[in-house]
Amino acid sequence: MKSFKLMTRRRKKRSSKSGLPPGSMIHIGEQRAEKVGIDLIDYDTDNFKSVSLENIKDAYPFRDSKTVSWINISGLHDIDIIQDLGNHFGIHPLILEDILNTDQRPKIEVYDNYLYVVLKMISFNPVSMKMEIEQVSLILGNNFVITFQEYAGDIFDPLRERIKLGKGRIRKNGSDYLLYAILDIVIDEYFLVLENLGDHIELLENLVIENPEKTIVSQIHKLKNELLMFRRNVWPLREVTNSLIREELPFVDESINPFLRDLFDHTVHVADSIDTYRDMTGGLLDVYLSNVSNRMNEVMKVLTIISTIFIPLSFLAGVYGMNFQVMPELRWPWAYFALWGFSAGGMLYYFRRKKWL
Amino acid sequence: MKSFKLMTRRRKKRSSKSGLPPGSMIHIGEQRAEKVGIDLIDYDTDNFKSVSLENIKDAYPFRDSKTVSWINISGLHDIDIIQDLGNHFGIHPLILEDILNTDQRPKIEVYDNYLYVVLKMISFNPVSMKMEIEQVSLILGNNFVITFQEYAGDIFDPLRERIKLGKGRIRKNGSDYLLYAILDIVIDEYFLVLENLGDHIELLENLVIENPEKTIVSQIHKLKNELLMFRRNVWPLREVTNSLIREELPFVDESINPFLRDLFDHTVHVADSIDTYRDMTGGLLDVYLSNVSNRMNEVMKVLTIISTIFIPLSFLAGVYGMNFQVMPELRWPWAYFALWGFSAGGMLYYFRRKKWL
Amino acid sequence: MKSFKLMTRRRKKRSSKSGLPPGSMIHIGEQRAEKVGIDLIDYDTDNFKSVSLENIKDAYPFRDSKTVSWINISGLHDIDIIQDLGNHFGIHPLILEDILNTDQRPKIEVYDNYLYVVLKMISFNPVSMKMEIEQVSLILGNNFVITFQEYAGDIFDPLRERIKLGKGRIRKNGSDYLLYAILDIVIDEYFLVLENLGDHIELLENLVIENPEKTIVSQIHKLKNELLMFRRNVWPLREVTNSLIREELPFVDESINPFLRDLFDHTVHVADSIDTYRDMTGGLLDVYLSNVSNRMNEVMKVLTIISTIFIPLSFLAGVYGMNFQVMPELRWPWAYFALWGFSAGGMLYYFRRKKWL
Amino acid sequence: MKSFKLMTRRRKKRSSKSGLPPGSMIHIGEQRAEKVGIDLIDYDTDNFKSVSLENIKDAYPFRDSKTVSWINISGLHDIDIIQDLGNHFGIHPLILEDILNTDQRPKIEVYDNYLYVVLKMISFNPVSMKMEIEQVSLILGNNFVITFQEYAGDIFDPLRERIKLGKGRIRKNGSDYLLYAILDIVIDEYFLVLENLGDHIELLENLVIENPEKTIVSQIHKLKNELLMFRRNVWPLREVTNSLIREELPFVDESINPFLRDLFDHTVHVADSIDTYRDMTGGLLDVYLSNVSNRMNEVMKVLTIISTIFIPLSFLAGVYGMNFQVMPELRWPWAYFALWGFSAGGMLYYFRRKKWL
Amino acid sequence: MKSFKLMTRRRKKRSSKSGLPPGSMIHIGEQRAEKVGIDLIDYDTDNFKSVSLENIKDAYPFRDSKTVSWINISGLHDIDIIQDLGNHFGIHPLILEDILNTDQRPKIEVYDNYLYVVLKMISFNPVSMKMEIEQVSLILGNNFVITFQEYAGDIFDPLRERIKLGKGRIRKNGSDYLLYAILDIVIDEYFLVLENLGDHIELLENLVIENPEKTIVSQIHKLKNELLMFRRNVWPLREVTNSLIREELPFVDESINPFLRDLFDHTVHVADSIDTYRDMTGGLLDVYLSNVSNRMNEVMKVLTIISTIFIPLSFLAGVYGMNFQVMPELRWPWAYFALWGFSAGGMLYYFRRKKWL
Repeated sequence: MKSFKLMTRRRKKRSSKSGLPPGSMIHIGEQRAEKVGIDLIDYDTDNFKSVSLENIKDAYPFRDSKTVSWINISGLHDIDIIQDLGNHFGIHPLILEDILNTDQRPKIEVYDNYLYVVLKMISFNPVSMKMEIEQVSLILGNNFVITFQEYAGDIFDPLRERIKLGKGRIRKNGSDYLLYAILDIVIDEYFLVLENLGDHIELLENLVIENPEKTIVSQIHKLKNELLMFRRNVWPLREVTNSLIREELPFVDESINPFLRDLFDHTVHVADSIDTYRDMTGGLLDVYLSNVSNRMNEVMKVLTIISTIFIPLSFLAGVYGMNFQVMPELRWPWAYFALWGFSAGGMLYYFRRKKWL
Repeated sequence: MKSFKLMTRRRKKRSSKSGLPPGSMIHIGEQRAEKVGIDLIDYDTDNFKSVSLENIKDAYPFRDSKTVSWINISGLHDIDIIQDLGNHFGIHPLILEDILNTDQRPKIEVYDNYLYVVLKMISFNPVSMKMEIEQVSLILGNNFVITFQEYAGDIFDPLRERIKLGKGRIRKNGSDYLLYAILDIVIDEYFLVLENLGDHIELLENLVIENPEKTIVSQIHKLKNELLMFRRNVWPLREVTNSLIREELPFVDESINPFLRDLFDHTVHVADSIDTYRDMTGGLLDVYLSNVSNRMNEVMKVLTIISTIFIPLSFLAGVYGMNFQVMPELRWPWAYFALWGFSAGGMLYYFRRKKWL
Repeated sequence: MKSFKLMTRRRKKRSSKSGLPPGSMIHIGEQRAEKVGIDLIDYDTDNFKSVSLENIKDAYPFRDSKTVSWINISGLHDIDIIQDLGNHFGIHPLILEDILNTDQRPKIEVYDNYLYVVLKMISFNPVSMKMEIEQVSLILGNNFVITFQEYAGDIFDPLRERIKLGKGRIRKNGSDYLLYAILDIVIDEYFLVLENLGDHIELLENLVIENPEKTIVSQIHKLKNELLMFRRNVWPLREVTNSLIREELPFVDESINPFLRDLFDHTVHVADSIDTYRDMTGGLLDVYLSNVSNRMNEVMKVLTIISTIFIPLSFLAGVYGMNFQVMPELRWPWAYFALWGFSAGGMLYYFRRKKWL
Repeated sequence: MKSFKLMTRRRKKRSSKSGLPPGSMIHIGEQRAEKVGIDLIDYDTDNFKSVSLENIKDAYPFRDSKTVSWINISGLHDIDIIQDLGNHFGIHPLILEDILNTDQRPKIEVYDNYLYVVLKMISFNPVSMKMEIEQVSLILGNNFVITFQEYAGDIFDPLRERIKLGKGRIRKNGSDYLLYAILDIVIDEYFLVLENLGDHIELLENLVIENPEKTIVSQIHKLKNELLMFRRNVWPLREVTNSLIREELPFVDESINPFLRDLFDHTVHVADSIDTYRDMTGGLLDVYLSNVSNRMNEVMKVLTIISTIFIPLSFLAGVYGMNFQVMPELRWPWAYFALWGFSAGGMLYYFRRKKWL
Repeated sequence: MKSFKLMTRRRKKRSSKSGLPPGSMIHIGEQRAEKVGIDLIDYDTDNFKSVSLENIKDAYPFRDSKTVSWINISGLHDIDIIQDLGNHFGIHPLILEDILNTDQRPKIEVYDNYLYVVLKMISFNPVSMKMEIEQVSLILGNNFVITFQEYAGDIFDPLRERIKLGKGRIRKNGSDYLLYAILDIVIDEYFLVLENLGDHIELLENLVIENPEKTIVSQIHKLKNELLMFRRNVWPLREVTNSLIREELPFVDESINPFLRDLFDHTVHVADSIDTYRDMTGGLLDVYLSNVSNRMNEVMKVLTIISTIFIPLSFLAGVYGMNFQVMPELRWPWAYFALWGFSAGGMLYYFRRKKWL
């Protein structure tokens, strides 16, 4: 997984594609050396099988089996595997290109013999205070789902466990329900990110009100950018989940509509919360800035009080420090004490008039 | 009921669900120990019956009675009751999950044999100056309405009284009118919240103009966040009430359309007012900030006047306090008085030029 | 009529209704003691009759007459009259409730045997610099129009005169044209309010640029709120007038469409102008704030010039006022004059470098 | 032509109409004494005739001629002419009212036997730096176009020349093409206004960055208001030109659709540019304000440096100017020189620490 | 290619057209002297031919050939060539006018026998930090594509190479695929511009946080304007690419829909990113301004500390520098040392109270 900074760095590589024919398969993402992981789960109500494959070709027989097959590819850096898989399952080259190019907006593409859904797996790194974004591509065919992750991860483990143990209704349903279950897990993660961002906002809120430091502005700015990135990856999902419900899609049975509507609700909920958070974060800056103004005001007031009192008095002291030969007051025995009295009296009057005393 | 702070704290618990199969029933909300309250009201034009049930099973016979039955559950922490009720009334597990998860956006879900409406009961706590938000779920079936509240409350008491006394047209109508009547009571409460927020804005307005204190910025900020929360819970209701009118829903007779339109109008009215209030609150900050600037300006002006007058004069006094052996002016008998004259004259001239005198 | 302040105060009374059955008739508005005015105008091409009725029942025979009848009720505090009228003319209780509750958004409601239109009569009080808002409700039936005003007023007098004298096409048209004529008069008043607000903006604009005082911020703020209120009462009218044109409404003949389109144009024109005014008012605050900043800058510059020149010179004077026994310069006969020369020269150099001279 | 200021002044006269029956013809605009100009051009492929008429009645025979006739009225202050013309050509009184009321939003009105289009002729006065706005009304009938200008102008002269010389395709087309040609000329003028405003923005941009003066804020404010006025008069035109294309209008042949689409494109282009300009102008104020802040900062820094150095040193000099009898340092022969050294050393150290040296 | 500045300068020339008949061919753009380049590529699955033509007439025979022909014109300053080409291929004069007027919004125009698409080729000049914008017009006919560039460039060279080598599917497809391939190359360039702008934002972000200089505001302002220009040229493309997919267009086969959808996705992606960048850039200014405020605050604090300490002490020193005859303290032997002690003690106390020590 990688943060937003990495994303911009990676985006640069997209330009390495300009001029190439459309459908050219170039992996745009972090280059890595490990082996690509291929996991196969095959099940129906009565049977369950889970294997790690060495060779992608071992997965091909499952394409036409009547059981539901879930092929999960973790790692996109071995283009040959994806090319080969694409050829065998009849995936359009542009889709293969999109799978490899990890800089996609969430979208759904409908072809005659499969559906393509791409979205982002988002998690919050509590150390760097940044979101980590990973692209997940899903191909839904007649009796299979193929998922492409950038990195090997454990996010789908609970789902695998549920399939294995036959918990819930997953074993009784087809590949469309599997697609839903995978999307549900990815989108459920967003709530965790929301919570983390919500905590972060509350923290900044307290800091801004109680102890505003200089660095808080760039912290707010970073949070704003994180929310921008989050929004950008969640908003298009509304359309994706909505067209899963509204449109008559191949391989998606009407019976799972309640589940898809639930998915849509979750997406709208997250999108809504992000907007609320953006409004709240925008307000934080206003509070900070007026606090800065207020402190400035206070500092200025202190300066002004001191100056207004002592500058005129200093002038007076200066006057009686002059060396003119004729200065009658200098001889008056009570003059010096009068000056002290005058100073004290002046201050008192001034303080009272300004209501500072 | 709980405030916004509690909400974020509670939202965290949502993450406790990640990885569980969809439809898993986990209560997301405040955990409590008291017994769940079950109230049943059963009526038609001629009959009326109101009981508090000990066991949810006692309510089941009323499902298929021809009279209108209203089952009210207060308290969501006993999952077994809701599970059991759901099974008996044929409620989809996802709906049961939504009832328990008190972090829903207002929405309407249409199933073949019932309607599900979820919305928020909102009240304003005058002590903490915060809104308290409670989730209300409604199931509308053929001859029954089931409501789920988070806490036992007296908001529906007047409605119960009206049913009992046969006031208004409620006894002459079916379960759809009961649904409307419940929604109407919940939405009517919003006007009270609006009034309280309106008063709060007026109060802040007066404070900002007459006596702007430092804490006012965070008060405005808090008010803004309250309005954000309010808006978030009211805006989706527009869609909910509108689809109650527009769509052909089961169990909702056309004859209550005027009432539903009234409901829609109220929702739009509240939503509209919230937006007006948000604009007004946004303006408050501008007024405050320019007041801060103005006061700063005034303070600076005082400082500048004092400095501009006395710093040059102090220099003059300093000059004649020097100890040079040759300083002709020191011997002029009228020099000291001339200096005073010059000082007074200079000030006078300066004041007049700046139009301060 | 009452201003915005009164409105919020009045809105509070709305809460007095919570818990009551829908359709409960409670007058939400200013309570008054005078008698409710009932005016009846009855006309066709050839006949004209205008009477003030003592008893609302005297108006009932006109419901089914073939002539056009206009019943105007001024004053909503006598609920019995409205209740009775509603019963006789078959008005839905919710509509009667809306007529009495003077806190409605402009809207149109279509029933089988009548149309209900509610909108706001708005005028600008030049003394308080505030808008005064009064609710007008209209019921359009087959051959009659019933209008409900909160207060007796003379706004409809020119229309009555036109009907009496048979000016224009009003006597040749039916009740739909009468509805249009009444709406036209109410909306024409908005242009007057617009003019007044436009003048006020121009005035503030001049003040901001030429003579910005402290109170101007709260004046701009108040103007903004007035525009918000105005917008809130005009925007929904667009929908109202538009549905008068677009929808096939009972009792509204297609032949008056050109007039209704004109009404729609006026509403759009006013709504448009309000938005332009809001943008202009928002700009005013920016101008004011930068003027404040500019003046601050100038004040600071004066302070800095004075300080930069005299503080170092004062130090020098202070140095030669010291009482050290060994200070060679004190004996130099030209030292004192040199110091004056140096001071003058330094100032001159400084001024030139800063381009102030 | 008149500027925005005049517009608000004129708008006031609109209120002089309140209470009058709809369709009352009152000229709302500048009152003038000159004679109204009536120009007639009549042409087909082979014939061309151009005359200035003394009496509007001389134009009537051309209504039903098979040649295309263009009647241009410049000056709206003689209501009788327009009334008479309206009666003869069967124009609806509301349209005549709109022609005279020069405060219309651009719009199109479709009647059975003619089309009414109203829009604004806008030019930029380089002296006053303000737009001048004139209303143009067009009536398109079967074989005629009637145009109403507020003032005699030369904007249509090139078009007249083209018709006369038979340049382009105008002589081969009907009255619909003439309508298009007139609209095209009016909208082409907008590009000129855009250029002038663009130049003005560039000028202000340079001023803001290089030499920000105080008056620039009100200049930006004025420019913003001009753009608001411009937008207000151009945006509704998008709808007007679009409905010329989309709707099946009488007398508008499909064959001129490419031309109308071109018109629509131009309108969208202008509207788009206005929005871009508004964004740019909004940015200017930000730049200006941060420049003001920056200069303030700099001024403050100078003041602070001077004060921080000389105020402590002055204190020292003050101390050794005291007249205490016991002050050992005063006797030290090197004390005076040490003080100078200390002063110089202190400054040096301070400058270095703050990195100013 | 030319930057935005040039664009406004050029736009001025648009006004040179006012008054001319529609369809008048005037080149609005940079005037140049070189010869216009005419390149022809003609291919089908088996054949390939690429020539540079001297005379446009040599291209005419290819109009009706069954092979796909691509005629590329670089340079728009020789109107005769374009006029002649337009006549031969039956292009509408308004389209020819649009080709020459390089100030078009991206759009698509559908005629019976051809499609016209106009869009902008955008590149980022790393030296001037500005975008360079060039207009590209495309005519898609039955078996040909004609492209018009303002300048000779090498952007299409990779495409030419691909056609020549028969790479990808281009040789197997018709002119619609060629149109797609050209659009794809142009839009792919936008990603490069995005990357450059993204880098620029990151750079400014670092500068703002770490080392905010005065010029950064105008740099942010310029970046904002560049983003505005970019947005303006990309947003309308969404509509263009969308109508390529949705509408049934002549010569565009359904089989290339996946490619056009890919194009649409890219456009949406770029448009989306531009909006994100605009939000981020807007945030930068906020961060900068609060940094300026913060530094001001700090400077003021230093000034206030120094003044608050030394101004009162200076007054004290001044007092004891007075020459009154009766000043008892002057005789106290420990008075001088007490004063030093008092000064030091006062400072210490002050520092501790303000928590600076």
